Amino acid sequence: MRIVVALGGNALLKRGEAMTAENQRANVRVAAEALAPLVAGNELLISHGNGPQVGLLALQADAFPLDVLGAQTEGMIGYMIEQELGNLLPYEQPLATLLTMVQVDPDDPAFQNPSKPIGPAYDEQEARKLASEKGWTVKPDGDRWRRVVPSPLPRHVFQLQPIQWLLEKGVVVICTGGGGIPTMYDEDGKLRGAEVVIDKDFASALLAKELDADLYVMATDADAVYLDWGTPQARPLGRVTYQDLKSHEFAAGSMRPKVLAACWFAQMTGRRAAIGSLADIDAMVAGSAGTQVGPAAGEVAELFGIPLA
Amino acid sequence: MRIVVALGGNALLKRGEAMTAENQRANVRVAAEALAPLVAGNELLISHGNGPQVGLLALQADAFPLDVLGAQTEGMIGYMIEQELGNLLPYEQPLATLLTMVQVDPDDPAFQNPSKPIGPAYDEQEARKLASEKGWTVKPDGDRWRRVVPSPLPRHVFQLQPIQWLLEKGVVVICTGGGGIPTMYDEDGKLRGAEVVIDKDFASALLAKELDADLYVMATDADAVYLDWGTPQARPLGRVTYQDLKSHEFAAGSMRPKVLAACWFAQMTGRRAAIGSLADIDAMVAGSAGTQVGPAAGEVAELFGIPLA
Repeated sequence: MRIVVALGGNALLKRGEAMTAENQRANVRVAAEALAPLVAGNELLISHGNGPQVGLLALQADAFPLDVLGAQTEGMIGYMIEQELGNLLPYEQPLATLLTMVQVDPDDPAFQNPSKPIGPAYDEQEARKLASEKGWTVKPDGDRWRRVVPSPLPRHVFQLQPIQWLLEKGVVVICTGGGGIPTMYDEDGKLRGAEVVIDKDFASALLAKELDADLYVMATDADAVYLDWGTPQARPLGRVTYQDLKSHEFAAGSMRPKVLAACWFAQMTGRRAAIGSLADIDAMVAGSAGTQVGPAAGEVAELFGIPLA
Repeated sequence: MRIVVALGGNALLKRGEAMTAENQRANVRVAAEALAPLVAGNELLISHGNGPQVGLLALQADAFPLDVLGAQTEGMIGYMIEQELGNLLPYEQPLATLLTMVQVDPDDPAFQNPSKPIGPAYDEQEARKLASEKGWTVKPDGDRWRRVVPSPLPRHVFQLQPIQWLLEKGVVVICTGGGGIPTMYDEDGKLRGAEVVIDKDFASALLAKELDADLYVMATDADAVYLDWGTPQARPLGRVTYQDLKSHEFAAGSMRPKVLAACWFAQMTGRRAAIGSLADIDAMVAGSAGTQVGPAAGEVAELFGIPLA
């Protein structure tokens, strides 16, 4: 199978951990241990988040724009993933980390409504102070506040052809980190950086679709998508169609983009997306753990032989 | 021809310029304009320095180790080169920037004698103060002082096979930035980061040799290698054999590693290396500008049909 695995931010840095190289590396090592068994017999693409990393880098006094920070974090995180995963694989297994640019549309309505939280959480007063000092937009995230930036939809992944060629040669490819380096065309038709963060679950879904992946897995810190999360009625979803999943409401936050990305991928490709814990990755690939999102029941039975709930 | 071009630090950030994204991008654009005409009809690999960038990032309070900073700068600089060069090429021309790890030997004598300057220049007193505060080694560089770190020889470039596959498909490949992400094997046979900076001219020479490049070009801010530089007798070297070039002394600094890398490449491969200004890149490729370093005269006449001085 050709599998795209999108690693959530917590696979790289747990909430509250300092962003040291050691902490990131320790988390990446755990992720690499979960991913290594998938390499034999599959074509594996790995993407990853970069929210905490970009957020902290963006705090610096002379911070680079978000496209450059995106490129820096693709370098930093991609390197750690490639090295740690490489240490668990046979020496002759090739791996490659490609910088990946993703195009957004300057007319995307997201530019009018910044919504993607980056960086640390603050209390309201501190957040409002920073907003006025630094020209940020800040919004509540749970009971804390965070800086938010526009998060336009990914329209195009630029390095698809080289990625495709490397996959065909059996290379494990790490790419589209942090949703890709955000870019857009200016009036002269030149590609430029965009001061946004692209949702990594959407960008990876686009990558998975464009590369004809058989399966798109989003690894997160929950073992499944839950209905009524945070209430006594909370219950995990197993196998669902995208139509069923779309009929539920999910609070904006980390799960909602995953649900939308899974539905989009299943609908566009007629293939399967899965959301769950990295610890269950083998079972998620097999279709027996996490929330498994497929197209309509009839189609799915045909496509991958698993009856849907 | 398969050509490796190593861009000097000044192609990315001129001495004294602030390390803003704008300044770097403006310099990268000039470099891209010089490189773009080489793409048609050649296989082009581009590497680059990262000395000023890594040096400045390493100044931060909670600075990452040098391998992680190397990975960050490969991301940042590689992105800018790929984007600016891509803007000058036909839309269908594929480009790819690969993170590149390079292996060093933990027993390399360089670990006993840190010699590679990174970051800004200080006056002596300031440099000694920083050295005692941060545990740095500092050394004179011209009439100023700079931090120095070990610079062991590159022993192996890890991503050669994917790079080779991409070149065969006609992809312009940007790789081995900053001499590669420095790594070495620990006692358990696991690859780890190394707290060093690998000379980019040596690493790119190794890359060029391993990939059977026909030509290895080092672009710098001088139009050639000069004998008696800084004296009234200063004179540029045109076509020389590596034996002749090796017979001269060059002060340690930016030109000496280039001379050694050129001699090494010419001797190991029987092919040509060139050192000169990016503005002369076409003529350097043609063999009519810069310092052209070849193997012994007889061999050279056979190999690329140019008589040597």
